[in-house]
Amino acid sequence: MQDIQPFRVMDILARAKALEAQGQSIIHMEVGEPDFSTPELIIEAAKLALDQGLTHYTAAVGLPKLRDAIAAYYKRRYSVDVSPEQVVITPGASGALMLSMGILVDPGQQVIMADPGYPCNRHFVRLMEGDTISVPVDEEMGYQLNVDLLKQYWTNKTSVVMLATPSNPTGSLIKHDNLLEIIEFATQKNATVIVDEIYHGLVYDEVVSTATGQSDNVFVINSFSKYFNMTGWRLGWIIAPKQYISSLDKLAQNIFLAAPTVSQHAALAAFDPLTIELLEQRRSIFKERRDYLLPELQRLGFEINFKPQGAFYIYADCSNLAEDSMTLSNQLLEEVGVAITPGDDFGQYGAGQHVRFAYTTSLPNLRDAVGRMETFFRK
Amino acid sequence: MQDIQPFRVMDILARAKALEAQGQSIIHMEVGEPDFSTPELIIEAAKLALDQGLTHYTAAVGLPKLRDAIAAYYKRRYSVDVSPEQVVITPGASGALMLSMGILVDPGQQVIMADPGYPCNRHFVRLMEGDTISVPVDEEMGYQLNVDLLKQYWTNKTSVVMLATPSNPTGSLIKHDNLLEIIEFATQKNATVIVDEIYHGLVYDEVVSTATGQSDNVFVINSFSKYFNMTGWRLGWIIAPKQYISSLDKLAQNIFLAAPTVSQHAALAAFDPLTIELLEQRRSIFKERRDYLLPELQRLGFEINFKPQGAFYIYADCSNLAEDSMTLSNQLLEEVGVAITPGDDFGQYGAGQHVRFAYTTSLPNLRDAVGRMETFFRK
Repeated sequence: MQDIQPFRVMDILARAKALEAQGQSIIHMEVGEPDFSTPELIIEAAKLALDQGLTHYTAAVGLPKLRDAIAAYYKRRYSVDVSPEQVVITPGASGALMLSMGILVDPGQQVIMADPGYPCNRHFVRLMEGDTISVPVDEEMGYQLNVDLLKQYWTNKTSVVMLATPSNPTGSLIKHDNLLEIIEFATQKNATVIVDEIYHGLVYDEVVSTATGQSDNVFVINSFSKYFNMTGWRLGWIIAPKQYISSLDKLAQNIFLAAPTVSQHAALAAFDPLTIELLEQRRSIFKERRDYLLPELQRLGFEINFKPQGAFYIYADCSNLAEDSMTLSNQLLEEVGVAITPGDDFGQYGAGQHVRFAYTTSLPNLRDAVGRMETFFRK
Repeated sequence: MQDIQPFRVMDILARAKALEAQGQSIIHMEVGEPDFSTPELIIEAAKLALDQGLTHYTAAVGLPKLRDAIAAYYKRRYSVDVSPEQVVITPGASGALMLSMGILVDPGQQVIMADPGYPCNRHFVRLMEGDTISVPVDEEMGYQLNVDLLKQYWTNKTSVVMLATPSNPTGSLIKHDNLLEIIEFATQKNATVIVDEIYHGLVYDEVVSTATGQSDNVFVINSFSKYFNMTGWRLGWIIAPKQYISSLDKLAQNIFLAAPTVSQHAALAAFDPLTIELLEQRRSIFKERRDYLLPELQRLGFEINFKPQGAFYIYADCSNLAEDSMTLSNQLLEEVGVAITPGDDFGQYGAGQHVRFAYTTSLPNLRDAVGRMETFFRK
């Protein structure tokens, strides 16, 4: 437990709420949660399930119809064949990460991942008594691992490569060639690759392909939280090679029994063409926000020589503007009511020089935030 | 992973469903889930939350209003003062067990618990790289631990005592004096006591008191699944001493972010007097089922010299009737369509000689099952 650090963002959020309670206006750019509410068809499907009394446990690996729907989504969206058997429904991506690490990481084994990255990944590894190898990545590397880096950091205890594309906090995509090389390298080393694709729906300038179906040693993790705007529903999934499914099933039975039932029924409406149409509109709103915020942050003096391709984050170097990112985050909150997240939440490398902006608030709010920061920096 | 056994009940359930698909009639007494649907007021509260767009993340420790409501429930029901701060909302009792073990068990430490017992407990300990000391308990011990047993099995690595009252699979309650002695003993040993009270609402002949508030080293785990008929909602809670709350919060942020939001809003209606009235009616139906089934099983030749006081299970010695419990479970399913759970799912001690009956089906179905078993044994 002592290895698990609290999220700074929780302190920021708590302080922001306290300030709001005192009547101050706060612009929230700290929270990794879409500001949109869950699409209406999903809400309606949930209410129908409630009316039908569908509130008992499902199978540990999830509702068969939802597993079918997800497999069909991979075919439609990525032209990849996924068997419904390979789909394991989980309580959020958290449940998916926990299960995958539980299956793949033995005590003393090492999981290699990029720093900065999503901090819970390290903690899941720790929970399984594994060790994390954090590989510093920067703008020049596109904030992603590559085979040269793997070779440099690999040991005989390394058993899992953890990737995230688009990544939190950087919004970077891994290049497809890069991904294939990593998978090939891992295969040679008898290691497994976990690819976190939870921000996959939120990519703005290109068509992305999934890591699913590339090899027999790839676990893909996804979630209904981000693209589908279903955070509080706690619903995610894993696409795993078939040989792992019975182990995943067994572990799921033991650690969470099953994902929430009403959420699973509701999610059946997530793939409805009308829902997808709405989500695509929202994606273009996110793009518009990114395209506004990125040059404005650069204009304010943040160093960003990298265009984030997805998710809803901009990871900005603030070393020209402040002594350290924690101080800057606190000052922006206290003095001008702009809540952002210091780099410390995402690892060690360059953490003190970076902050994360989440554009999970409206364009007028983003404009207001830019104005407030301008005032702050002009002092 | 290889230490984690699959639940036999899942094979039984799968086979039962396959037989049903072939047109056979199956009476389900294998599943640890109330047959009642979630009370209407809870369903209505969920729908209201959906209409209000309350689908974003809550705080990791849960909705403040729900923490308040649970604290108030302890006051009303048990006359125990619980501060809302001490209440941590979790995704089911599974989440509660995971968090508690995550906080309390370091690698190599030992958790002492009764055998037979709920098998996931062992697996959570294993997940944290701790070791389980399984203490064989029988009818004469009321299927519960006591201080003499603790003294006998205690080592210098034992750091947690895990109790469950009423217990799954035996339905036994721990005597209050016994509980207090165990807590006192654990205090002397600087150990913590986790008390699983998830079947607490379902006690039939006596008034039970909670372990909450007895000492500063007691974690109480409860759930909305069983008494409140909310299994698929995945919602439970921990009442923990205040000094552990920030660690629990931190770990919850990392391993599951938060419990499902709509479930939390819905659960606010679980304490409504009208809901409680309905649940109390359902409790008396469970009692009626127990009072019918227990003597009938004895008449059929099952050896049960112990009256289960709670939960919805009867744990029956079948050694007069069959070679082993797994064979009997399979035969009853295949030959007369009665699905029950072999003792193997609950530990090692006497597992081959015991089966668990869940009276989570109607009285007419129980009568039918008894008739079918009578036919089976008469052959």
